[in-house]
Amino acid sequence: MRAEVITIGDELLIGQVVDTNSAWIAEQLNAYGIELYQITSVHDSREHIIAALDEAFGRADIVLTTGGLGPTKDDITKHVLCEYFGTHLIEDARVRAHIERLYKDRPDVLNRLTATQWLVPENAEILENRVGSAPLMIFHHGQQLLASMPGVPYEMKIAMEEQILPYIGRTTASILHKTLQVTGIPESALAILLEDYEAKMPASLHLAYLPKDGIIRLRLSSYGEVTEKEMNGWFEELKRLTAAYLIADTDEPLEVIAGRLLKERHQTISTAESCTGGKLAVLLNKHAGSSEFYKGSIVSYATSVKEQVLGVPSEMIKQHTVVSEDVVRVMAESVRKLLNTDFSIATSGIASATGGYSDAEVGTVWIAWATPQNTYAECFHLGKLREQITDRACTKALVKLIEILR
Amino acid sequence: MRAEVITIGDELLIGQVVDTNSAWIAEQLNAYGIELYQITSVHDSREHIIAALDEAFGRADIVLTTGGLGPTKDDITKHVLCEYFGTHLIEDARVRAHIERLYKDRPDVLNRLTATQWLVPENAEILENRVGSAPLMIFHHGQQLLASMPGVPYEMKIAMEEQILPYIGRTTASILHKTLQVTGIPESALAILLEDYEAKMPASLHLAYLPKDGIIRLRLSSYGEVTEKEMNGWFEELKRLTAAYLIADTDEPLEVIAGRLLKERHQTISTAESCTGGKLAVLLNKHAGSSEFYKGSIVSYATSVKEQVLGVPSEMIKQHTVVSEDVVRVMAESVRKLLNTDFSIATSGIASATGGYSDAEVGTVWIAWATPQNTYAECFHLGKLREQITDRACTKALVKLIEILR
Repeated sequence: MRAEVITIGDELLIGQVVDTNSAWIAEQLNAYGIELYQITSVHDSREHIIAALDEAFGRADIVLTTGGLGPTKDDITKHVLCEYFGTHLIEDARVRAHIERLYKDRPDVLNRLTATQWLVPENAEILENRVGSAPLMIFHHGQQLLASMPGVPYEMKIAMEEQILPYIGRTTASILHKTLQVTGIPESALAILLEDYEAKMPASLHLAYLPKDGIIRLRLSSYGEVTEKEMNGWFEELKRLTAAYLIADTDEPLEVIAGRLLKERHQTISTAESCTGGKLAVLLNKHAGSSEFYKGSIVSYATSVKEQVLGVPSEMIKQHTVVSEDVVRVMAESVRKLLNTDFSIATSGIASATGGYSDAEVGTVWIAWATPQNTYAECFHLGKLREQITDRACTKALVKLIEILR
Repeated sequence: MRAEVITIGDELLIGQVVDTNSAWIAEQLNAYGIELYQITSVHDSREHIIAALDEAFGRADIVLTTGGLGPTKDDITKHVLCEYFGTHLIEDARVRAHIERLYKDRPDVLNRLTATQWLVPENAEILENRVGSAPLMIFHHGQQLLASMPGVPYEMKIAMEEQILPYIGRTTASILHKTLQVTGIPESALAILLEDYEAKMPASLHLAYLPKDGIIRLRLSSYGEVTEKEMNGWFEELKRLTAAYLIADTDEPLEVIAGRLLKERHQTISTAESCTGGKLAVLLNKHAGSSEFYKGSIVSYATSVKEQVLGVPSEMIKQHTVVSEDVVRVMAESVRKLLNTDFSIATSGIASATGGYSDAEVGTVWIAWATPQNTYAECFHLGKLREQITDRACTKALVKLIEILR
């Protein structure tokens, strides 16, 4: 079964908003055995939406649209869908009761524009939008189906999980993806290593290389013609071939893997961050349950914080600069003691050519890992762009942490 | 002039990667006076790419593609473009010299797969990819033009900025966008407030409402038929009408506005974060030059860190719990002193129903702002989803900070 996503909104096409909805929807559909064939982003324009609907229905069984369902004048999706499916708006008493309940303490929201939200297309099935006022609409188009959802990510997610996906139901087609993650080998060298493997792979299997921030994710995909057992066999061989570079045999983010290892050992971690500025902290406490292993961080962006809070000697900074092995070691050991954790990570690097650093120095990052036994430190050169440098530093920090924990 | 973007890669359609490239490209094109009409994400499939090219050339003057240019087997864009434009691959001596120079210290990268990267389509113009091995290709299609770039975001950005955009050149059409940001009014009430304004607006002007995390961005757009002076007039009126709710008359992120206000005053800030876990820190040091006003943060995720590093009395926590006005005030005042800054922000809230909290309590966040004169504290209820709660808390924290700084 094949689906397409149409995201509707001028904001997507002038770059004011990044479309994060489509990737999330894609994952959900795949888990249900539904292939997402194409994602199309279109303007809040009658002609554009109609053209995109025509094209999508020419290719897919299910069309999902997001966006354009607000009460304001720029949102036209509901009206265009009425026209497309030859129907008109009528008041829906159930939707009205829901909206009146939702905003019972908000007379400022319950105004005549919000009242347009309980007008729904006569021939659409209306599913409940538990968290918002925009109706979730299902239209039938012969054997095909269209579901229209709000564009606000959290409303869309609840709509998909609680209403749309159960409505579509589990299909029988099985899409299988299995991913592993490697590091320390260039993409082209990895492809040469796997040349024989790829040559003998059946045509219904597909291998993709996804490099990012020093990690390459290798994804093996099958769209229904390979059994789970055969797929597992191919995946095991892939693991054997890449064993020397393997970090993980799942697609889980590195911080989830590190968190699980820490939880299993009932151990804790803290960070002392200069150039990464709290990014490692955010990763380590991103997921629910992280308080079991993550205690806190000192973001020592200014030199004075390194000295006064983390106790880095001024003399050491004068002699070696803040981006040095000595300083990053003291930072790691000091935050480990201060926050009383088993492990700690410290970062100090040059993320831009300000503060007296030269272009050539940009990208230099020292990282230290303190453990109950030892402190390790390593220097990296991570490119020239601010965000790239700090993202890659986080990856390096987590890869080594996972190695230490194993 | 009209452009379209085609992003190529299975990873986008199974949800393994979020397409951040398109929004960035859209912004750049708009700044050049080029309208981005549609974004289409397609599979690494010959048929799918060819169909998308046909459709895009039916609508746009310029087609930009990203992705599918790696040296591995799953990347087929270069071969499909050769077929589409009726040409074949030849060795390019300049590209070869560039790649050999780029990887002169990396014999593991300079292998026979990397060597395929200096094979380029005979009838394409090849622009220099300063940071990678994939060739940047320009194809002419009658009066139309196609530019093919790598999908890795930082390579794509350098390619666009240094090569593709200067190649396309500044056009005369002028697309104008002006955005302001308001808070404290529901979207529907704002639309009613602006009803007369919208009714008398010329048809060539367009007003869009973009709500996110408690902020509504109001964007006024014109695609060429309105002069800059007229546009400014309409924008000034919009500002007058929304004055009571206005936070900013630009589209700049809140942390940039706050940072500028701090820099102007030569003052500094720190944060003490529990539920936001370092997100405020990351925002405040996200942009180059932030060391002028941002000194550091204490992420006090565990109660012990609140007590031992920030000096919150155990008795206070026992009496009021960690999510309370008293605790968040001490956190703010304490980090302000400890890091010796003029201002500070502290957050403590319940982002998920773990650690003994009930579902009903999830979303409660206390925020405090310490200034040289006073400490303010406020309690918010920010929804039910972990990421939404912490993102909205950051918005609330920055909105009030901006108010205080003004």
